[in-house]
Amino acid sequence: MRQSEMLLPTLKEVPADADISSHQLLIRAGFIRKVAAGMYSFLPIGNRVLRNVEAIVREEMDKARAHEMNMTVLQPAEWWQETGRWHSYGPELMRMQDRHEREFALGATHEEEITAIIRDEVKSYKQLPLTLYQIQSKFRDEKRPRFGLLRGREFLMKDAYSFHGSYESLDKAYERMFQAYTNIFSRLGLNFRAVIADSGEMGGKDNHEFMVLSDVGEDTIAYSDTSRYAANIEMAPVEQTYETSTEEPKELEKVATPNCKTMAEAADALGHTLAEGIKALMFNVDGKLVMVLTRGDHEVNDVKLKNLYDADMIELASEEETRNALGTGFGSVGPINVSDDVEIVADNAVKAMVNVTCGANEDGYHFTHVTPDHDFNVSHYADLRFIQEGDPSPDGQGTIQFAKGIEVGHVFKLGTRYAEPMKAKFLDENGKANTVIMGCYGIGISRTLASIVEQYHDEKGITWPSNIAPYKVHLLALNIKKEEQQELAERIYSKLQDAGVDVLFDDRKERAGVKFADSDLVGIPLRITVGKRAAEGVVEMKERHSGEQDEVEEKEILDRITSFLKQS
Amino acid sequence: MRQSEMLLPTLKEVPADADISSHQLLIRAGFIRKVAAGMYSFLPIGNRVLRNVEAIVREEMDKARAHEMNMTVLQPAEWWQETGRWHSYGPELMRMQDRHEREFALGATHEEEITAIIRDEVKSYKQLPLTLYQIQSKFRDEKRPRFGLLRGREFLMKDAYSFHGSYESLDKAYERMFQAYTNIFSRLGLNFRAVIADSGEMGGKDNHEFMVLSDVGEDTIAYSDTSRYAANIEMAPVEQTYETSTEEPKELEKVATPNCKTMAEAADALGHTLAEGIKALMFNVDGKLVMVLTRGDHEVNDVKLKNLYDADMIELASEEETRNALGTGFGSVGPINVSDDVEIVADNAVKAMVNVTCGANEDGYHFTHVTPDHDFNVSHYADLRFIQEGDPSPDGQGTIQFAKGIEVGHVFKLGTRYAEPMKAKFLDENGKANTVIMGCYGIGISRTLASIVEQYHDEKGITWPSNIAPYKVHLLALNIKKEEQQELAERIYSKLQDAGVDVLFDDRKERAGVKFADSDLVGIPLRITVGKRAAEGVVEMKERHSGEQDEVEEKEILDRITSFLKQS
Repeated sequence: MRQSEMLLPTLKEVPADADISSHQLLIRAGFIRKVAAGMYSFLPIGNRVLRNVEAIVREEMDKARAHEMNMTVLQPAEWWQETGRWHSYGPELMRMQDRHEREFALGATHEEEITAIIRDEVKSYKQLPLTLYQIQSKFRDEKRPRFGLLRGREFLMKDAYSFHGSYESLDKAYERMFQAYTNIFSRLGLNFRAVIADSGEMGGKDNHEFMVLSDVGEDTIAYSDTSRYAANIEMAPVEQTYETSTEEPKELEKVATPNCKTMAEAADALGHTLAEGIKALMFNVDGKLVMVLTRGDHEVNDVKLKNLYDADMIELASEEETRNALGTGFGSVGPINVSDDVEIVADNAVKAMVNVTCGANEDGYHFTHVTPDHDFNVSHYADLRFIQEGDPSPDGQGTIQFAKGIEVGHVFKLGTRYAEPMKAKFLDENGKANTVIMGCYGIGISRTLASIVEQYHDEKGITWPSNIAPYKVHLLALNIKKEEQQELAERIYSKLQDAGVDVLFDDRKERAGVKFADSDLVGIPLRITVGKRAAEGVVEMKERHSGEQDEVEEKEILDRITSFLKQS
Repeated sequence: MRQSEMLLPTLKEVPADADISSHQLLIRAGFIRKVAAGMYSFLPIGNRVLRNVEAIVREEMDKARAHEMNMTVLQPAEWWQETGRWHSYGPELMRMQDRHEREFALGATHEEEITAIIRDEVKSYKQLPLTLYQIQSKFRDEKRPRFGLLRGREFLMKDAYSFHGSYESLDKAYERMFQAYTNIFSRLGLNFRAVIADSGEMGGKDNHEFMVLSDVGEDTIAYSDTSRYAANIEMAPVEQTYETSTEEPKELEKVATPNCKTMAEAADALGHTLAEGIKALMFNVDGKLVMVLTRGDHEVNDVKLKNLYDADMIELASEEETRNALGTGFGSVGPINVSDDVEIVADNAVKAMVNVTCGANEDGYHFTHVTPDHDFNVSHYADLRFIQEGDPSPDGQGTIQFAKGIEVGHVFKLGTRYAEPMKAKFLDENGKANTVIMGCYGIGISRTLASIVEQYHDEKGITWPSNIAPYKVHLLALNIKKEEQQELAERIYSKLQDAGVDVLFDDRKERAGVKFADSDLVGIPLRITVGKRAAEGVVEMKERHSGEQDEVEEKEILDRITSFLKQS
């Protein structure tokens, strides 16, 4: 492509409303333009990358035996009313009325529409399983659209849905999709993790978010520094084994700790580390008071507590509730001398503690020389704390690190969440009507594109991985007015085109400085510069990512490109 | 693809609301499903055809140096207000409000958005010309959506826009696009015409609609039976030369024609053909009365009359106006004894008439032996009539035929219609600000798909042309329970897949009759049936379109497929 014929407007200035690198660079390099808050049009060079990402997604979806289809953007309100989401989706669901005042949703996602189709078309177990997908613009009226393509209101998504007669069949499709997602994000060159996600109210443990690691991410991930293990921090089990001290339990001693309201203040006053004190918190679990103990340097993970009790609702007890039950305020809560009405549960780490401190259930006092099971009883020991950096990874490999992540994909076992209210049923082998079982699988295509830029850029611009770069080669004729430069550049351009190499040819009448800066900004992996040594048939070749450069003779160019593309 | 794993629901019954073949067959064969009036989702097999059509469109667009981009569906109302279309587009423009009550249009077309982008990004003549396109869902709230994909409310469109510094540059782009469209519809195997279209209020003669000839079309086209000439009937000039009779003009004679209100009644009463009488109609042209004469068997083309006078408004005069001017009602209007206030113009055919009849400007009377220029004067002779079937084609080749057409494409020189109100300007070579000149070029992708079905079907189903067929080969195992059939079919299936042949394998546990009927309905060009002679390694091969069939040995299959695909 000749750059002189293309709409590729670059900007020197950083756009005022662009806070993060991908947003800034995609605008500056002419890939996208803002239409309204959270809505972007893709200019030609941006569209090329989008289509390259799409192609990889399609290949892997097809390989995973998903079949592409194409649903409507507009969806009748009735379907969303059947699942209750017409109401529960809230203002994020964009809506419109047609000329007959019939209401429609602008597709935020397509569970309703696909389930409506399946309900009409699938009658028998013989037609199952099925996995269907599409790549399409989606609409979500985010309250605070921001970060360019990362949180948009109109964005491109690949959404897939699978339908099954049994959970075993769903498990298989889920596994295939999981593998497809792993392949996709690996092929896109992303540093990502498949993260065990909170299943929220959907139930079912199989629910993974694919997160690209990035400081601009809005989620925190706990991941292993050596294996593929990763989870949302609230979902990560703690598999640490705690060694019990061989020290003999000493006699309890009550110590004044005036004005100590927090664990840290008490530890300071008593002259020990946080890890040498027991932290006790009172929770209200479905209306019942429970005391939860952790080591002083640990935090209670309320998801784990909730799961332990299979509770509908848990919350921290108020100071008043605490005082009523224990006779003390927040500063001195402890497990010793507690009435039988209050159940005491403790994180596994507490079991290993010997001769430590805890609140004395008396304002301004703590006990020292406290040893669990010696000085008080615990109903249950369980994994009740948040995982921490440095903890062993739950899969037994490596150590936990924290990172911020951008969610680019999500695979989810929905079960009958949609098929049930929409009455999508099939007849099984015995002629019995069963509700269809469902999975859903999404990838934010435009968000993924932005995530790639977050991981592939430097101070000068984008550094696209070759397989999704808008062009493989950027050919620069430094001074198009010099005949020998123009001739050589044109010759190389034709040759590369004939060889089927995707090449962008900067044939503009611009200064060399402008061309170099634009080229760095746009980020095509390999640059060929036709400059001063054109008369000798020598050009400069530079790899955008590594910065390596070299002078190359005309006749070697094609081989060099081929070998670069092969290795990259 | 294994049919057993696919969502390909066929129907025996014709859907109640489907009036035309493409609508019926696309539903029955499992290509599309209705979501709401004028809105259809494409099931996997339909999506495959859609993508095949898209691929051809893309190839030809890219060859025509158009660059693909991807604009938003949602467009801020402000842009449409700038061009006045927020109001003038009326209820066909779908609209919505976001959570902040900001108004948006759902893209019915993208002149506004692309012009807004060009206005911001194109500053200099150096950046022009540019041609940009996208393939995207469009939204138009048709009052009467009907005929399935032919008149939908949400449909897939390729829309292209070109921008220029001069009209010469626009002409070149227009020509390239015209050629691209010709290539596209030819490659799609369509019987179509590029039709000279009414330019409406846009001005400029270069405005072509690409019409697929079809009885279900809503437009009438006049086309040559031997050349590529075609025009909307109102746009076709009449190039007929009329031979003047050598007969001497006779004396006028006034004849009573009581109760003759129409030309046909008068001709009957006077005992001659329609072609032997002069028809005279009074028109109000920008407030001035004009008498328009045509041969009795011709019809006045008001577009031509309007162009003759370069008028803003023309309409047929009322009977009262006629009587005031001539002293007679509609039945006896004629050009003899008319006051000088009424200008008389006549179609070229009238000049050749000798000794014919006309109204006598007296109720119930006609003149006979009337000869123009002998018995009355004519201000102008011009081409003022509608072309008719049997007329010579205006391009001098062949004879005019009429046909109904489906508009599948439109190329249009817009000039400054959008750039002017949106103030899209560029600096020319002399540093002077000029308004950008624009062309637009649309193809209804989903409508084109339906047009193909209109031209490619028989009583059993669709007969897809090979290059856009969803699969090239339909492999049927007639009785999957018979081991030799299953084995042979599986062997052929693997072989075809390895050879990269797009094959749909009907491996379902269905009766042979069902499989044959479904196969005919779906319309894949080549069918391979593994049946009774499976044990001998012999299959049946049948061409869907021609119906030709043949028995083929296993080892010949691939060669036969290759040669079929080459020739088709």
